[in-house]
Amino acid sequence: MIEEQVKSQAIEAWFQGLQARICKGLEALDGSGQLFRADDWQRSEGGGGRTCVLSGGEILEKGGVAFSAVRGPSSEPMLRTLQIPYDKEKPLPQFLATGVSIVLHPRSPEVPIIHKNVRYFELSNGIWWFGGGIDLTPHYIDESLAGEFHRGLELVCEKHKSSFYPRFKDWADDYFYLPHRQETRGIGGIFFDRLKSESEDMSKEALWAFVQDVGDAFVPLYAKQVEACRSRSFGEREKQWQYLRRGRYTEFNLVWDRGTKFGLQTGGRTESILMSLPPQAQWEYMHSPELGGREEATLAMLKKGIDWKSK
Amino acid sequence: MIEEQVKSQAIEAWFQGLQARICKGLEALDGSGQLFRADDWQRSEGGGGRTCVLSGGEILEKGGVAFSAVRGPSSEPMLRTLQIPYDKEKPLPQFLATGVSIVLHPRSPEVPIIHKNVRYFELSNGIWWFGGGIDLTPHYIDESLAGEFHRGLELVCEKHKSSFYPRFKDWADDYFYLPHRQETRGIGGIFFDRLKSESEDMSKEALWAFVQDVGDAFVPLYAKQVEACRSRSFGEREKQWQYLRRGRYTEFNLVWDRGTKFGLQTGGRTESILMSLPPQAQWEYMHSPELGGREEATLAMLKKGIDWKSK
Repeated sequence: MIEEQVKSQAIEAWFQGLQARICKGLEALDGSGQLFRADDWQRSEGGGGRTCVLSGGEILEKGGVAFSAVRGPSSEPMLRTLQIPYDKEKPLPQFLATGVSIVLHPRSPEVPIIHKNVRYFELSNGIWWFGGGIDLTPHYIDESLAGEFHRGLELVCEKHKSSFYPRFKDWADDYFYLPHRQETRGIGGIFFDRLKSESEDMSKEALWAFVQDVGDAFVPLYAKQVEACRSRSFGEREKQWQYLRRGRYTEFNLVWDRGTKFGLQTGGRTESILMSLPPQAQWEYMHSPELGGREEATLAMLKKGIDWKSK
Repeated sequence: MIEEQVKSQAIEAWFQGLQARICKGLEALDGSGQLFRADDWQRSEGGGGRTCVLSGGEILEKGGVAFSAVRGPSSEPMLRTLQIPYDKEKPLPQFLATGVSIVLHPRSPEVPIIHKNVRYFELSNGIWWFGGGIDLTPHYIDESLAGEFHRGLELVCEKHKSSFYPRFKDWADDYFYLPHRQETRGIGGIFFDRLKSESEDMSKEALWAFVQDVGDAFVPLYAKQVEACRSRSFGEREKQWQYLRRGRYTEFNLVWDRGTKFGLQTGGRTESILMSLPPQAQWEYMHSPELGGREEATLAMLKKGIDWKSK
């Protein structure tokens, strides 16, 4: 075989470098001089990770950037959850799961919460795939900034395959959704999972190039949002609304997010998984926003299927 | 048949009365003059409920007391979840689920959070059972008050069957547990489910009498706790710890509590299900309490298998 496939070691190393670049980029964006604090951890069955958290910045009240590369023997529950057939009579394959996950909770309710994930999974029997996504959760939706965010994502996708943006935008609408509230988490973005050569008719290198571009797009995309909103003033009313929206964010992550649930139920590192939770959240029974206010306007836009890129 | 069995209508009516009595009792205990606000709701497929919430009391920062009696045709997912066999060829049975659920979040971190539930389930094919429990979540554990709480529960149980307290105490230890934190939610209490005549060798009347006693024990048990702690002073440190413990309470309810998950996933009334969430919660990455402080002492006691009643 002359054409060498991209190797898992290279993917893992690139993810590790991405984490470091993103932390540097976010420290610069924050501008307070607060730095990410890094915790290295090991998993007894194999692999480990580095979790970086910044607290008390000027822009970032709490931000987490986590890298992990977890490996070892797979298990029947894991393979069943992933819907991968296995032979009970034979030894189960080894697995590798590696990626970078980010959630940023800004101090200002005028600045959106953002989430990003890029990941790679492989089994020693030759099965592999990529997954990931970026989505934005403004406390107050600014339609023009929502448009800018989606056009930025479209640009990243277009470079690789024209069907990516529309498919992955719809997928994000479906994934980042709270059925019990009949609300999307925010304005969505892109989400993709199990990207494989066979189903996309693209080489592993081509898919990997796309995932790398999604990884690198994160800081510039968020910086644009922050620069546009950071100087907007806010008061107690906006802070209260932010706390309630953070409550919704908590509900999504703990009740519906598959990664969080899978992680907590399979003994993942709790502090790394739950770094996505907000520093503070509130719940108010039967809260309903003031008629005609910005809060009501935002709620009305937390719907699937909105063509944000044309805003 | 001369011996008439207790009827579901009577159970439902008694639960409704229990809700009213508990609300009155808690309003008196709170003493601020704040009253429960009642919301009646209907379920389109049958039945409904009344959710009562008190906010901004002197003792109770947020308290919810919910009654519901939900009925209608059962569904295959419901019967599968309940592990009840059914015949696909025949019409599915009708169900009734009725009960009272309570969660109280006190203002003072010196006063414990409390939860109580009593419930009855029946199918038109003759299957029925009772369930319920009471458990206490002190922000700071006071061993002597924990002992008093458990001895109170033991007294309620002993009246009905000597094995109830030890069995249901262990069941609560197992149920109110956060595997991802390796912590119990609090000091436990009692938990029971699927209490039936066959398995307990007790009549339906006898089981119902036990469930009623659990229902009526709630206010006096909590009043004892409140009276002992309400005048204790606290400061910013204790409030911060309370917010973190409320974060754990949120994690339990959203990730592990079967009732909450089942309710949210089957389209229950979201505001009633999530009235159990605290008014405010916080998360801090890698928080570790001060060595030798009351917070550390409490964490050390969040374990299964502690013989609280002897404290």
